[in-house]
Amino acid sequence: MASSRRDGDIVGVLRRILGERCSLSAYDIESHSHDESFHPPAAPDAVAFPKSNEEVAQIVQACAAHETPVIPFGAGTAVEGHVQAVNGGISLDLSRMDRVLQLRTDDLDCRVQAGIRRLALNDHLERHGLWLPIDPGADASIGGMAATGASGTTTVRYGTIRENVLGLTCVLADGRIITTGGRAQKSSAGYDLTKLMLGSEGTLSVITEVQLKLHPLPESVAAAVCSFPSVGASVDTVIEVLQSGIPVARCEFLDSASMQAVSAYAKLELEVAPTIFFEFHGTRASVAEQADLTGSIAAEHGGGSFQWATERERRENLWHARHHAYYAIKALRPGSYGWVSDTCVPISQLSASIEQAQADIDAAGLTAPILGHVGDGNFHAIFLVDPSDRAELGRASKVNNRMIESAIAAGGTCTGEHGIGLGKLDWLRAEHGEGAAVMRALKDALDPAGILNPGKVFG
Amino acid sequence: MASSRRDGDIVGVLRRILGERCSLSAYDIESHSHDESFHPPAAPDAVAFPKSNEEVAQIVQACAAHETPVIPFGAGTAVEGHVQAVNGGISLDLSRMDRVLQLRTDDLDCRVQAGIRRLALNDHLERHGLWLPIDPGADASIGGMAATGASGTTTVRYGTIRENVLGLTCVLADGRIITTGGRAQKSSAGYDLTKLMLGSEGTLSVITEVQLKLHPLPESVAAAVCSFPSVGASVDTVIEVLQSGIPVARCEFLDSASMQAVSAYAKLELEVAPTIFFEFHGTRASVAEQADLTGSIAAEHGGGSFQWATERERRENLWHARHHAYYAIKALRPGSYGWVSDTCVPISQLSASIEQAQADIDAAGLTAPILGHVGDGNFHAIFLVDPSDRAELGRASKVNNRMIESAIAAGGTCTGEHGIGLGKLDWLRAEHGEGAAVMRALKDALDPAGILNPGKVFG
Repeated sequence: MASSRRDGDIVGVLRRILGERCSLSAYDIESHSHDESFHPPAAPDAVAFPKSNEEVAQIVQACAAHETPVIPFGAGTAVEGHVQAVNGGISLDLSRMDRVLQLRTDDLDCRVQAGIRRLALNDHLERHGLWLPIDPGADASIGGMAATGASGTTTVRYGTIRENVLGLTCVLADGRIITTGGRAQKSSAGYDLTKLMLGSEGTLSVITEVQLKLHPLPESVAAAVCSFPSVGASVDTVIEVLQSGIPVARCEFLDSASMQAVSAYAKLELEVAPTIFFEFHGTRASVAEQADLTGSIAAEHGGGSFQWATERERRENLWHARHHAYYAIKALRPGSYGWVSDTCVPISQLSASIEQAQADIDAAGLTAPILGHVGDGNFHAIFLVDPSDRAELGRASKVNNRMIESAIAAGGTCTGEHGIGLGKLDWLRAEHGEGAAVMRALKDALDPAGILNPGKVFG
Repeated sequence: MASSRRDGDIVGVLRRILGERCSLSAYDIESHSHDESFHPPAAPDAVAFPKSNEEVAQIVQACAAHETPVIPFGAGTAVEGHVQAVNGGISLDLSRMDRVLQLRTDDLDCRVQAGIRRLALNDHLERHGLWLPIDPGADASIGGMAATGASGTTTVRYGTIRENVLGLTCVLADGRIITTGGRAQKSSAGYDLTKLMLGSEGTLSVITEVQLKLHPLPESVAAAVCSFPSVGASVDTVIEVLQSGIPVARCEFLDSASMQAVSAYAKLELEVAPTIFFEFHGTRASVAEQADLTGSIAAEHGGGSFQWATERERRENLWHARHHAYYAIKALRPGSYGWVSDTCVPISQLSASIEQAQADIDAAGLTAPILGHVGDGNFHAIFLVDPSDRAELGRASKVNNRMIESAIAAGGTCTGEHGIGLGKLDWLRAEHGEGAAVMRALKDALDPAGILNPGKVFG
């Protein structure tokens, strides 16, 4: 790949297609050189801001002709270095493709351009009594969520983004535009290209449109917070809740260290103990029943006072603490970087995994409170590290590697929802063995020149 | 492909691997030459009955070396000619790989060999208070359900088989054994090979093990049957039920012709009108609330008396009629073959699609009662045809083609749950356009010699 050729020709070609929407400004280059992670920035040669599928196709065709990398960019909220232009090339920013193209309330679906963000979409949907419940925390773009297989606090009830996408429009490495899936709720017509593209991190295609399943806003919502004598008691409570078929909408774990951070930050008097934040959705009667049943199960496992609230203000007070946990934890060590682990295990292995991680964190002299999407078996240790302290980073990395090794040994995964990006390259083969070679064969079949987000997923 | 070479060498090789479990018996050859469809039988050269992943790998390796087709065979209950050995070769029968390998009640998951059948699995699970709710009607093998992306009456609540598979063991065209996915509820580690294999109809790999998500048996179940003044009123009722967030477990549509057949066959006095069979799962209180709310919505749409029952016997009487609808419909014309269509559309298009199909059926002088999984937008016209009457078959085919064309035009699919097999080959490109070429590229990447179930999906 001849860098001089790229910098010259391709930018000229993109300028002819996009005019000023092919940017070389220092601001654009810098802001597209990194996501929210600690991975070193890597600047693209230029940033393209297309407004249509056809423009995306033209950009990709031009990049293919010039053997220039194309790095799709949504909101830049990824956490594993997904948007870094490690081989230079064109950052393809989809933020100006942010329209709702179609909304059908009777079908509970909508089609959006990839650049629309989650909160803007839900603002739009709310007036129709609908929502997309997938909540990865950040105000990510829908295209970015699709590309990383995002999930979050509501996955225990509503699934990940994968279960909520019916179809896509994608631009392939040679510039062909394909539509995958459709508007039917299910199909057995051929291979599931939609699911192949979901979670492929921009390495198989550029996702430009997403057909989404929507959900009715629940008639009633209740929240509860309950502390437990041990990690095991809290996880066992959730296991029994799920075995009982209670359709809990959220069940978020915070360990003692997280609760200490949250109490201090939110100025709430919360008990410093392993805690579950619950949320229930349904009719008023169903929510009351779910909360009562869950409260009984929690009590059997030594859970503390189980207070639940349906009033919006009280509920939001309770959840406020959870929603700001990341910032509360960061405030424990001002100026530190929060490096977030992402293992996911079968729920039967979850309390042992969390306790092992806590022991390893303590033994390494690190600060890393733990949050978990318990229902999914997915938890995050937030390692508070000084990025300039290589010894400390090394210790954190060692603990994280051990967490990953034991997750994989337990049948789990190195990444529940953040993706491989640049950060988990070494683990793909450890987790999938020969399957990783199959993934590579698919990549070679669809992007033989390797122009789509090079360096990600496979290194 | 030299047939003589196949018949000689490969059978000898397989005999050395499998002994008597490589069968040339006339009975085995015949019973593996067809599924339950009207597609002409096509006999394999031999039938292999492996007992382990390693034996499957050895068989596939031998077939690869001899350029011999391998056709995976589960229970033979497919309906689009999936198991016909159109180019000869080896029928790979997985029925002797039918064990439950692992069951974890706390994780609500299990790992099974591909040959286990749905009802046997649910018998095994019932004593643990669990079930796999996916109900395609036939007592299919789990591997076959995975390979065709099966669904059925409970999909509106529990999803298709695709949403209930966490991982697979597959044997690739070169004999490599891979495991996809894992036991975690979610993962963002690389491409979703599990979902790529699900619904690939044995053309990308032989599925040998399936890791399944399980569900707790509902504490309480209620059934209700309600007739409506029109197709539109019945579908509108279901739309409103879904918009209200009522977690209905089943909602099955029968048109007047189906109800007439069912009433006569089951000797029940059921109204001959468009009818919905509902089922509700949950706690006793939740089921009562769901049924009451649904009854109110049905009444607003002119629904007839809405009686619901929680007692097992009364419930089973109500559903008995629905479960035997296919046989009841076949009894309308003894000796006929029931050719089943399988279009699926956005639910907003469902009543228009059904009414158009009914008009076309009548205009063509055909008998074809209609059943539908309303919540999914999926419906089946059961064309009662005389397979020897080419003119009649032609008329049925014309009506079916028109149904498919209008489904695709409405954003739907030519097959909601039966698959492409031999029967929908011409429609894959019509539905997916350039996406069909991408599917073909994936096939070529993973099975360059084309030995895995040749002639299916792509023809």
